Amino acid sequence: MTMHRFRTFLALAFTALVLTACAATPAPEPATDPLPSWNEGPSKARILDFLDRVTDPDSPDFVPVAERIATFDNDGTLWSEQPIYFQLVFALDRVKAMAPQHPEWADQEPFRSVLAGDMAGLAAQGEAGLVPLLGATHTGMSEAEFRAVAQEWLNTARHPRFDQPYKDMVYQPMLEVLELFRANDFQTWIVSGGGIQFLRAFTEETYGIPPEQVVGTSFVSSYDWRDGDPVLMRQPELDFLDDKEGKPVAINLHIGRRPIAAFGNSDGDLQMLQWTHAGEGPRLAVYIHHTDADREWAYDRGSHIGGLDQGLDQAAQFNWLVVDMARDWSVIYPFQRED
Amino acid sequence: MTMHRFRTFLALAFTALVLTACAATPAPEPATDPLPSWNEGPSKARILDFLDRVTDPDSPDFVPVAERIATFDNDGTLWSEQPIYFQLVFALDRVKAMAPQHPEWADQEPFRSVLAGDMAGLAAQGEAGLVPLLGATHTGMSEAEFRAVAQEWLNTARHPRFDQPYKDMVYQPMLEVLELFRANDFQTWIVSGGGIQFLRAFTEETYGIPPEQVVGTSFVSSYDWRDGDPVLMRQPELDFLDDKEGKPVAINLHIGRRPIAAFGNSDGDLQMLQWTHAGEGPRLAVYIHHTDADREWAYDRGSHIGGLDQGLDQAAQFNWLVVDMARDWSVIYPFQRED
Repeated sequence: MTMHRFRTFLALAFTALVLTACAATPAPEPATDPLPSWNEGPSKARILDFLDRVTDPDSPDFVPVAERIATFDNDGTLWSEQPIYFQLVFALDRVKAMAPQHPEWADQEPFRSVLAGDMAGLAAQGEAGLVPLLGATHTGMSEAEFRAVAQEWLNTARHPRFDQPYKDMVYQPMLEVLELFRANDFQTWIVSGGGIQFLRAFTEETYGIPPEQVVGTSFVSSYDWRDGDPVLMRQPELDFLDDKEGKPVAINLHIGRRPIAAFGNSDGDLQMLQWTHAGEGPRLAVYIHHTDADREWAYDRGSHIGGLDQGLDQAAQFNWLVVDMARDWSVIYPFQRED
Repeated sequence: MTMHRFRTFLALAFTALVLTACAATPAPEPATDPLPSWNEGPSKARILDFLDRVTDPDSPDFVPVAERIATFDNDGTLWSEQPIYFQLVFALDRVKAMAPQHPEWADQEPFRSVLAGDMAGLAAQGEAGLVPLLGATHTGMSEAEFRAVAQEWLNTARHPRFDQPYKDMVYQPMLEVLELFRANDFQTWIVSGGGIQFLRAFTEETYGIPPEQVVGTSFVSSYDWRDGDPVLMRQPELDFLDDKEGKPVAINLHIGRRPIAAFGNSDGDLQMLQWTHAGEGPRLAVYIHHTDADREWAYDRGSHIGGLDQGLDQAAQFNWLVVDMARDWSVIYPFQRED
């Protein structure tokens, strides 16, 4: 090769190099599994197929980004709910922590039962026992104070069976679902029977779900003044119960659009799934079925917590996806992962 | 130049061309005015300065994107509210449209007054007259049906003074503010005394604000079944009044974070501005002051609609920004622009 040809070659090679570099076409990613904690099978395939269809502009099922709304129940759908709802554990722990300031509780129900560790006695009081319990532990303070107390508990209390913080008792496969839906430009909303402000104390850190996408049960809040500053005070009065029929109502109030995907695990989620399913276009209605007594808990019809009875029937009738935890999930909790 | 040198030159020139093209550095945009309908002056400067401070990572006032929440009243802040609230015009028009199906209204107040065009007679009945009026026109149908009726009205009814559709009676300078805040990664929420579902019938198209960022007054909604499908039915019962003290309460319920900027125009927005102002860090609390009788309306203390009395006093006391429409805005409505 002569020198001038070599120079030309060099210049052209450099041009090619620059063209390649600046085309900004990265090498195709190795096909990573977007749901690594889901075993291969019909459940995983159906979720992935749904996402493909609604995000493919050439699909007849394509859904514009603005309408990609997915709603998720929390207790039993995103984290565990056995042996009792975690928020109820929080209330019981608060009674114990507050007891020194309330000597009268020693012989006043339902507090006496709680302080004596008499869960059967508490349960025997039914809802009539829960109301003063929630009132004493969840109201009478500002919204900011309640949040601080809830966060403190979430950072310290541990689940008796797994000896893990409650906020780590979340389902790794569902964390992956949340992430994958957001990667497909979905808004991922929580629509829970749990307390909206209790949820907000951990949903952003734990699920990546910001407070404005959390819907839940609420107490009345009042605008007051304290030390010259406005303050929102939590009142011992139920504002909204976000359960059963309440869920579609709350979805309509907070979101103002019908979800195209919804995940639940109990009859408390039935109306949310019906409402989601009944819309036009592609729909994904999912029940998480608790079938794994070894790694989590197994319960459905007749369970005192998270009962799933009518929901199982309607899931079969309408061909909703029923996820079998034992079969479909290779891992339950993040702390059990081996990677 | 010899041929080989020419070839080298060509190749290098091409390289340079490619490098220039693919550097993808567009020529700097001409410094466009982000608020072209705002006259130069202290109001415009203060808004721009606020945005600079909260978005500059090197500023002590920097605010993370997740906390960039701005809330906007609607009536009198984003669109006009004179001579009566536009949603009330909608209710009156609906009474007239529905009258053939309600012969009993001919001698039944408040409907008789409305059908006779007797606004003084209607006004004399006060709130007691409004309740059946809103009940008859805003409830008793599904949420979807109400939305369709509201949209139909918004697409056809015209304001008597300007002969323009009501949804064009929006403030061009505020459209620019909404746009600019969003360009600075703010969420722009509506927090209005108007009906939440009425607002959602036009906020996305008109303001670029999606339904999930609209907060307003609501009626109770119930989950029912019709022809085998679930339906949300609007009930003639007030659910939440999003005015005055209700605004911070609703902000806490729907957003779950305190805004760092809030815009209002009346004493109905006072608590929202107090709540916003009282938070830590940089704050922007703004009153739109209706000072322009020629181009819009002039009113504040003592006005029967959009009264601004205590608010003016507190704005002075706390150094909130008071926008003088006549002085600060070069254009009021989009249809008056000359470009």
